[in-house]
Amino acid sequence: MEPGHTIPILGKGYVRYIDHLGSDLRIVESARISYKSPSKGVDQDKKLLTYLYKHRHTSPFEQCSITYNIKMPIFIMRQFVRHRTFRLNEWSARYSELADEFYIPTQWRAADAKNKQGSQASGNLDHAKITKEVEAFHEKAYATYQNLLQQGVARELARAVLPVSIFTEVYVNCDLHNLLHFLHLREDDHAQLEIREMAAAMRTVAEQLYPWTFEAYHKFRLGVTDRPTPA
Amino acid sequence: MEPGHTIPILGKGYVRYIDHLGSDLRIVESARISYKSPSKGVDQDKKLLTYLYKHRHTSPFEQCSITYNIKMPIFIMRQFVRHRTFRLNEWSARYSELADEFYIPTQWRAADAKNKQGSQASGNLDHAKITKEVEAFHEKAYATYQNLLQQGVARELARAVLPVSIFTEVYVNCDLHNLLHFLHLREDDHAQLEIREMAAAMRTVAEQLYPWTFEAYHKFRLGVTDRPTPA
Amino acid sequence: MEPGHTIPILGKGYVRYIDHLGSDLRIVESARISYKSPSKGVDQDKKLLTYLYKHRHTSPFEQCSITYNIKMPIFIMRQFVRHRTFRLNEWSARYSELADEFYIPTQWRAADAKNKQGSQASGNLDHAKITKEVEAFHEKAYATYQNLLQQGVARELARAVLPVSIFTEVYVNCDLHNLLHFLHLREDDHAQLEIREMAAAMRTVAEQLYPWTFEAYHKFRLGVTDRPTPA
Amino acid sequence: MEPGHTIPILGKGYVRYIDHLGSDLRIVESARISYKSPSKGVDQDKKLLTYLYKHRHTSPFEQCSITYNIKMPIFIMRQFVRHRTFRLNEWSARYSELADEFYIPTQWRAADAKNKQGSQASGNLDHAKITKEVEAFHEKAYATYQNLLQQGVARELARAVLPVSIFTEVYVNCDLHNLLHFLHLREDDHAQLEIREMAAAMRTVAEQLYPWTFEAYHKFRLGVTDRPTPA
Repeated sequence: MEPGHTIPILGKGYVRYIDHLGSDLRIVESARISYKSPSKGVDQDKKLLTYLYKHRHTSPFEQCSITYNIKMPIFIMRQFVRHRTFRLNEWSARYSELADEFYIPTQWRAADAKNKQGSQASGNLDHAKITKEVEAFHEKAYATYQNLLQQGVARELARAVLPVSIFTEVYVNCDLHNLLHFLHLREDDHAQLEIREMAAAMRTVAEQLYPWTFEAYHKFRLGVTDRPTPA
Repeated sequence: MEPGHTIPILGKGYVRYIDHLGSDLRIVESARISYKSPSKGVDQDKKLLTYLYKHRHTSPFEQCSITYNIKMPIFIMRQFVRHRTFRLNEWSARYSELADEFYIPTQWRAADAKNKQGSQASGNLDHAKITKEVEAFHEKAYATYQNLLQQGVARELARAVLPVSIFTEVYVNCDLHNLLHFLHLREDDHAQLEIREMAAAMRTVAEQLYPWTFEAYHKFRLGVTDRPTPA
Repeated sequence: MEPGHTIPILGKGYVRYIDHLGSDLRIVESARISYKSPSKGVDQDKKLLTYLYKHRHTSPFEQCSITYNIKMPIFIMRQFVRHRTFRLNEWSARYSELADEFYIPTQWRAADAKNKQGSQASGNLDHAKITKEVEAFHEKAYATYQNLLQQGVARELARAVLPVSIFTEVYVNCDLHNLLHFLHLREDDHAQLEIREMAAAMRTVAEQLYPWTFEAYHKFRLGVTDRPTPA
Repeated sequence: MEPGHTIPILGKGYVRYIDHLGSDLRIVESARISYKSPSKGVDQDKKLLTYLYKHRHTSPFEQCSITYNIKMPIFIMRQFVRHRTFRLNEWSARYSELADEFYIPTQWRAADAKNKQGSQASGNLDHAKITKEVEAFHEKAYATYQNLLQQGVARELARAVLPVSIFTEVYVNCDLHNLLHFLHLREDDHAQLEIREMAAAMRTVAEQLYPWTFEAYHKFRLGVTDRPTPA
């Protein structure tokens, strides 16, 4: 995968691959430090990696990491930042102005009938009307922001009027074990659709870098639904 | 300090004391595990604590922690959450509606002449006019939010129009070492005034619970300005 | 549970309860910050806690923590310290002499026939003979240590001859979520028997402090064997 | 620096460079995400990095990391593992036998006259005699270990007789910010000489990979002695 490879998400957002450390073989190699047993060839190496994943020997997967550049709306960033092992730098709205770019879903979703925090597709929503209203509001919000800046208000205060639908940007380095944990939680049916889209793009990058690991992940993790719909 | 003791901040926000673990003596006691030397009385205990702080033996201070309930605007929460050792739960706007409460500074601040990310008091701003404009905008923002909810849009999408000036609320447990680190960074001249106000309220609670520690903190830390104004 | 309550483990070791923060109700209370819904009585509170645990909403469990004072052999400490969220202070053998106290198992165990890293009870071992040999060796080790100290060798170097069976001591504060994770891993059949004994004593303390949580833990976690014997 | 480049330490130990992520420019690049300002050439980039370091903007330095393979005695490993941000795998003495390799200092050190936890060079120690005694003890310890294994005792129990002077081995990935923090603490005069030797070797590797960062480190950090000799 070429550095700079970019996957568009959420309208004006993206997940961009910057760099990575290690490989499936690195995971095996670091595990062999524990076992003090030399490699017996590629088939055995893959078997060992699968064994490690299946039996939750998680530390060798921390030896790998991926650096992404991600552009996402603030309300998704607020979920993303809760993953405390991720190392990140974010666009500072104290230091520079945020751009006039907001997230608008392609399809508005209604409140979920069963899951109080969720959403579902709905034929009852007037999508065009809602989009128009929200776009008008975004315009108003950005104009208010600009107006404050022009009156001389400090950036750190003017930005307070910006809605959480506005895009921000991060540089982030995630170790592979914690990335898998993130994917498990954020590609789950209960996660908000927007972060699922972002997580899927992050996974698309990661799968090309660590194919054995993701083969194990899909086989042993996604099959197990341990976060069922609450009654 | 009584559980529930509440310090108002930032208009409608507050820092509320919920509970704490340990004391100055706990810090000394856990340090004595390392030294295997019994206490020689309260004067020596205080001297030891001061020695530990001064020479950056930080781990005994991790044995204490404070639980706060804090109400603050989202743009401050976004700074707060970057302190990754803090353990927290936050109001979910996916699960329930946010309230119609927004932060408005009592005094608007202008861009700082010297520090690109900072702000300063200014006689040139028309405070009353700006406040009126921002309040009108907040009203518009909340009405747009309510309007989306009434049309049946899921909470998780409707909330995207809310500005980062809206209040959120957290439960948070901070260990004392990392709280001191937080205070050092966030009561600094370069921190945004709003988080400095919040940090000061958190400190007011903490000082009553761990008086020796804060005596050492004020003596050895605040005196040292190691984050000077950038040229 | 009284502070100072002590459970003997591993011969001369112990797990001692020092203090704790929070309760089952604190977990519920901090979760309700997210849901913004008031308590509907104790039955509903317990039901919510069980729901949180079952569906892996782990952050409210981080609001509670327990402080232990534990005496354990160094080879167990070396496993214990790998739990990076635990906050701890340990007896420093640079600063003071370690005591003449070593771990000897009551029953020696043989290499496991199936599990390369494990052990099993065995009728083929001459327990009395082995214990005698090991006790003689411990005596020799401690005498060598004392001899080096008497010749003026610095403690930090003299201690290098001490075997990992010698006892050390820690003060440790564990948040409840990460304690449960620790117990899950270290009470597992694949964990070394000695750390299982220590984990069980830690659990005995914790179960009295957070009874609802442990009811949920036993119901939803221990039933699931997700670390089966490797083939 | 070539992967596999190895620096001998502590007799039979070593620090080996395996891999790294990022560069001085990566640090600058990730900081520019916050500032949203493009690079103005290499001189300005270096100036920015120095500014970041000097004013403790630490997060961009977390975007880089180094993977080492290190062989060190267990008593040093016990200090090393306390750095909780390091991601590591260690040789398991439950799974395989440890080798007959022990640390012996080239010069024995006496207890420090002033610093209770320290040591100092001494003409009063009979180095040859002490070395001979300790070597004899190591031989005895390893023979006891082998004897237990031959009687069928499980590896996880037999290893308990091994002294903390025996060598272990790790794979470890350290982010650059936390590596600098480690070096600051462990190259300090108060750190044990053995870990200072290891830290210096780790630094030798790191300096070649991130030269601007280390120029800043030497200029702004080592000059400040904030851990003076305790009275």
